[in-house]
Amino acid sequence: MDIKTYKRDFDYSYTLGAFPTFELVDAMPENIINVYSGSNFTDMEKLTAKCNEKSVPISINDKVINKLSDKGNVYTVGVFRKYIQELDCKKPHIVLVNPSDMGNLGTIIRTAAAFGILDIAIIEPAADIFNPKTIRASMGSVFRVRIKKFESFDKYREYISENKREIFTFMLNGEKPLTITDCPKPELYSLVFGNEASGLPNEYLNYGTSIIIPQSDLVDSLNLTIAAGIGMYMFSSGKNVTKKT
Amino acid sequence: MDIKTYKRDFDYSYTLGAFPTFELVDAMPENIINVYSGSNFTDMEKLTAKCNEKSVPISINDKVINKLSDKGNVYTVGVFRKYIQELDCKKPHIVLVNPSDMGNLGTIIRTAAAFGILDIAIIEPAADIFNPKTIRASMGSVFRVRIKKFESFDKYREYISENKREIFTFMLNGEKPLTITDCPKPELYSLVFGNEASGLPNEYLNYGTSIIIPQSDLVDSLNLTIAAGIGMYMFSSGKNVTKKT
Repeated sequence: MDIKTYKRDFDYSYTLGAFPTFELVDAMPENIINVYSGSNFTDMEKLTAKCNEKSVPISINDKVINKLSDKGNVYTVGVFRKYIQELDCKKPHIVLVNPSDMGNLGTIIRTAAAFGILDIAIIEPAADIFNPKTIRASMGSVFRVRIKKFESFDKYREYISENKREIFTFMLNGEKPLTITDCPKPELYSLVFGNEASGLPNEYLNYGTSIIIPQSDLVDSLNLTIAAGIGMYMFSSGKNVTKKT
Repeated sequence: MDIKTYKRDFDYSYTLGAFPTFELVDAMPENIINVYSGSNFTDMEKLTAKCNEKSVPISINDKVINKLSDKGNVYTVGVFRKYIQELDCKKPHIVLVNPSDMGNLGTIIRTAAAFGILDIAIIEPAADIFNPKTIRASMGSVFRVRIKKFESFDKYREYISENKREIFTFMLNGEKPLTITDCPKPELYSLVFGNEASGLPNEYLNYGTSIIIPQSDLVDSLNLTIAAGIGMYMFSSGKNVTKKT
């Protein structure tokens, strides 16, 4: 197989670097086409053992590594087939409406995994979840969560309609301030966050409870990843005991 | 004055783009050397009015803009003299030990300003607070806070020794889990965060109360900016009513 530098319309992608590659092999071996390492990769023994354990093919190939590693410093890549997942509608969700930055998207996925929120809806248009940059920013935790893309928020609402679920939209003009002493504690919830630059449009004031994280007027707004991190932490606090399976 | 592309040893720096430039003019006019705008800057009238109000010189100069704007898309820059500040030792502090990424540093400063924590100690070596990238990531809020660099954490401890203050070090092996129902509420505190890759060394277990943000084992750790954001939110919650002066 001739592996090319990633483009969004490919039916495969790859991890760049040891950490996300180990995560890929550990969490999603069934979708791996091949793991490649450079001849100077120092953790070859451990990675080979892990690949053997998971029946994943691994080979040394400096040519592939040099081609895919955009800035060097990458000694192993894991090439995998893209896949489609369904969300668990009996679990809390994160909903990202039009996230545009791959670094932010990866960071939010990593934070969601940290707080045991493992189902993530992406409302398109959105940054590419399979881009190696997103994967890297997620530290490979993109392989630990379920992610599903939706054409619109309405399509997402249809998707979740069977279960009783509370929707919380995070907005600068939200009605309910989120504070330590006053954080909702629903069993089943979706936390909805907007685009980095534009946030959520005003129609999202009506989809459930709109939430504002209290902040000073010294800044225009919180960074998206920070707002999402605080929201996820607050709603999951005391429940985040997820273990690797 | 011949403005050159920024280097760390310069005694001046500059903002890139309208948002941080407006913040600079508004918050720190006394340190500005000159504001420059490109002839195609669309918000010239508003910026000129603001500069006049603050007695800041402004001129149109496409040559300067083109030289300093590394990737284009910058239509105004504010050139300022670097300055040295003292912290307010009667206020809460953020202490960043060896932060290495300018984007992270800027994001943490922005978050601190959002939560009304306006005094930031930086333990060196550290990323450059005056680099235009840091300023941009802070969305100009670097001009809204007080920042002081220290050679070591011991020097910082000497600096704060006059006031009774509780120190909280955020560590993956911290002793105290930070939860909604159990967050300390001291009047005067310092929240201490380590380097992106290595965190805080074990000696920081002994400087006060070490804190862990509970997280699943699906990730290696939280991103530094997320951990800092949650820490600042939790400790300041209910107190963050800072207004522009």
